[in-house]
Amino acid sequence: MYCSLSESSSTAHPSQPFVFYCMRTAQTLSGIVARRFFNTSTRIMASGKTLTVSNINPNVIKMEYAVRGTIVIRAVELEKELAAGVQKPFPNVIKANIGDAHAMGQKPITFIRQLLACIANPSLMETDKSLPSDVIEHAKAFLGSCGGKSAGAYSQSTGVEIVRKHVAEYISRRDNGVPSNSEDICLSGGASESIRNVLKLFINKGSGKKVGVMIPIPQYPLYSATIEEFGLGQVGYYLSESSNWSLDEAELERSFEEHSKEYDIRVLCVINPGNPTGQVLSRDNIETIIKFAQKKKLFILADEVYQDNVYAQGSQFHSFKKVLVEMGEPYNKLELASFHSVSKGYMGECGMRGGYVEFLNLDPEVYVLFKKMISAKLCSTVLGQAVIDAVVNPPKEGEPSYALWKKEKDDVLASLKERATLVEKAYSSIDGISCNPVQGAMYAFPQITIPQKAVEKAQSLNQQPDFFYALELLESTGICIVPGSGFGQKDGTYHFRTTILPQPELFKDMLARFTDFHTKFLAKYK
Amino acid sequence: MYCSLSESSSTAHPSQPFVFYCMRTAQTLSGIVARRFFNTSTRIMASGKTLTVSNINPNVIKMEYAVRGTIVIRAVELEKELAAGVQKPFPNVIKANIGDAHAMGQKPITFIRQLLACIANPSLMETDKSLPSDVIEHAKAFLGSCGGKSAGAYSQSTGVEIVRKHVAEYISRRDNGVPSNSEDICLSGGASESIRNVLKLFINKGSGKKVGVMIPIPQYPLYSATIEEFGLGQVGYYLSESSNWSLDEAELERSFEEHSKEYDIRVLCVINPGNPTGQVLSRDNIETIIKFAQKKKLFILADEVYQDNVYAQGSQFHSFKKVLVEMGEPYNKLELASFHSVSKGYMGECGMRGGYVEFLNLDPEVYVLFKKMISAKLCSTVLGQAVIDAVVNPPKEGEPSYALWKKEKDDVLASLKERATLVEKAYSSIDGISCNPVQGAMYAFPQITIPQKAVEKAQSLNQQPDFFYALELLESTGICIVPGSGFGQKDGTYHFRTTILPQPELFKDMLARFTDFHTKFLAKYK
Repeated sequence: MYCSLSESSSTAHPSQPFVFYCMRTAQTLSGIVARRFFNTSTRIMASGKTLTVSNINPNVIKMEYAVRGTIVIRAVELEKELAAGVQKPFPNVIKANIGDAHAMGQKPITFIRQLLACIANPSLMETDKSLPSDVIEHAKAFLGSCGGKSAGAYSQSTGVEIVRKHVAEYISRRDNGVPSNSEDICLSGGASESIRNVLKLFINKGSGKKVGVMIPIPQYPLYSATIEEFGLGQVGYYLSESSNWSLDEAELERSFEEHSKEYDIRVLCVINPGNPTGQVLSRDNIETIIKFAQKKKLFILADEVYQDNVYAQGSQFHSFKKVLVEMGEPYNKLELASFHSVSKGYMGECGMRGGYVEFLNLDPEVYVLFKKMISAKLCSTVLGQAVIDAVVNPPKEGEPSYALWKKEKDDVLASLKERATLVEKAYSSIDGISCNPVQGAMYAFPQITIPQKAVEKAQSLNQQPDFFYALELLESTGICIVPGSGFGQKDGTYHFRTTILPQPELFKDMLARFTDFHTKFLAKYK
Repeated sequence: MYCSLSESSSTAHPSQPFVFYCMRTAQTLSGIVARRFFNTSTRIMASGKTLTVSNINPNVIKMEYAVRGTIVIRAVELEKELAAGVQKPFPNVIKANIGDAHAMGQKPITFIRQLLACIANPSLMETDKSLPSDVIEHAKAFLGSCGGKSAGAYSQSTGVEIVRKHVAEYISRRDNGVPSNSEDICLSGGASESIRNVLKLFINKGSGKKVGVMIPIPQYPLYSATIEEFGLGQVGYYLSESSNWSLDEAELERSFEEHSKEYDIRVLCVINPGNPTGQVLSRDNIETIIKFAQKKKLFILADEVYQDNVYAQGSQFHSFKKVLVEMGEPYNKLELASFHSVSKGYMGECGMRGGYVEFLNLDPEVYVLFKKMISAKLCSTVLGQAVIDAVVNPPKEGEPSYALWKKEKDDVLASLKERATLVEKAYSSIDGISCNPVQGAMYAFPQITIPQKAVEKAQSLNQQPDFFYALELLESTGICIVPGSGFGQKDGTYHFRTTILPQPELFKDMLARFTDFHTKFLAKYK
């Protein structure tokens, strides 16, 4: 009767064989480059469609988000095949591609979930006599700040007032008393949304150039994808792998100079603790970056979503805000947006979509416009905001929920710390792989030596060598990692990102499967 | 030590007097127009800031979202003043500006909230013996489709699989068996997010013109705001107020012809039931629109979030998909995106942020790119997706939750229907006001005659006459409505949008306050 997408599609449908999907995707993407130069006024193409790859938003074609890219699509297919009884050389798929703790078996924090249930269904506070009193107090305070005392009412676009207040108190505690004002904080559906909102402010070609955004290489692909989508200019600066992924002033200078002819560089993004690189920046290193930003008049975006994930002896998280304020004039006048999230840390509540941005020294007129812009999106999920509230205002010592909350939090962080050490040791011990210490965050980003014959094989398939490696790994072992080319890396080097999130038993299983695969891969392409 | 936004700001801070805020905002916005023509290469302005209104994204300056605009900001201030004990000529602020049912006292549906609580805290399913068995079954089925059986795991970017399946089943039931495929459905954080995602695909200046998007006038300002933000071209077609806000083919033609020199018109947006206009399109009218879209090769965006809110005798909701499919060739080949939400209907769960888009006849290559684009946003709130699940897959007859669910749903809809009738009668009976029947949705959009002296007074204040009226109304009575100029209206006519959401007692109080104000206003400016 009519043609549904899935019936008519010859591309990218989960039921299509993967190789065919890859071929079609490759065709699409190369075809697109050619077709973009056609005059789109003849927009009703052979397909008869009004919207086609010939006239779609060109930035959507260019953007890539490797964390959910082709390898992951194939992993999902493999899971379905296994579930359907197809025989594979592995019993299960291990998704080490994404920082998704609960999907990897981490248990939720009881306090957070009790609070959420009370806010969702307030009658529980009357009927459930087993609820700790502090959970009820938190829930009532939160609901008292909601329209109609319901999480079903829209919040202000900037977020529920009491949560913004608790965030400010949290930041000030974290930063040794450096003040924070709730008016400078906007809640959002995860940190990604805030990061995208802030980057959107910079879209402006008034100077005749694209605005340039400095990002680390390797980077988290949200940045490269958003920069492409918004038509901004990517200005990559390399992290120094030999110095445990630290930043080097000379490299910042090189990158700035090299790109300043092409772009009007106005933004410097830093990810600390690092994703995908797992380093924790030293205070010295942060001061270097701040001085550089001041010299070049850059607006700093500090992605600090892994601030609770610091494992290495001697490593400590320093917020950019605290360092910048403590450095005094003129650095304390720099414009800064700092981001945090409930998706990482010890709670790992990715699906809840809670995050925030704190602004420092933002032009007040710009802030009015920012708030107007986000108002058209109405508000972020109110239950997500409740999770933020639980994270920034957890049980205090002496309250009924404190002991369990503390134990659950400490257990998660201790286990992550154990796996952070384990992953580095395991990968470093494998021939042809080197791995920096995982000081923080949730990832290792090992470098792999890919034999020349494998590189040639990959090239013959029109694939990046690390993509080829990752796909072989997936098909042979069920382990899903993300090729380094999705994050950026120095030419001629190959990496992959793996999370440290599989629970200990699965994690050991994964390392064993990996080692076996790698040995065979080296032998095969020797 | 450093300068926080709120400390340094001389604009738009809630603690600033409103008149001062308005003045400053007006200065800002007119100043912006002048400054945009400056060469932004001298971007370090007197403020010393890197990001200023002189070099910010110009589309962010232009976009407006009246539903949360100046009048609403003032209403929030008034609420705070009342709370602080300031004497006002009214006891409370009545927010009739936004379709936010829970904020206006509507109670949540028990089934939805029990389900949410179980999903948030699954241990309740063991401990709470009072839970109906169907709630537990729904919760278990939902969690079984989540990573790690936790709502804290990311979902696929398109949404939790079982919810997409339930949405497809719901659509097919709604549309008398017209098939729906879950692969064509993507969940999102409210319908707004999906609408924005789809419109984003059309950003393309390859033809040398902006892509034009046809929208009704009056319209819901999400459309005008998004069109401005994305640099698309707004192509307004007037709804016919004298024919109860229906669409007229000649007007569609006029609008298309008038704008097709300037824009490459490729999209036709329709809101049915209407926002802010409250009409329910007849099947004939929908067929006319579909024929027009086919003739002009337009992609249809059908905003159908009020599909459950139909009150008038003889009115019935017809989805664009059903009509288009039933019309057969060539109409059943048209590209369509249809949107729905959990924020409206009988549930009014705005703060939960749940919505979806169903695509029909979308180019499969475009769909691959769409899914890639949304993957960079990771996923929408999983608890919001659970609310969608509850709405599209409610208790069935014979299940333990059915009777209560049915009663609560029917009560809400009956009460809304009563208020829909009441609002039309009340406004129509007031001298100088005319009001079309509220056939559906949650709004009335009455036309007001504003006396010439009031128009002149408004002009002397550089305000739109209906803005002036709305502000006087707010300051005198505490009633917060949105001026018609925020939605668009024929030149020389004045309207306002009011919701029908205040609960019956408050609603009658509102109508009494309104009538009293309007009578005095007419007398004052006679």
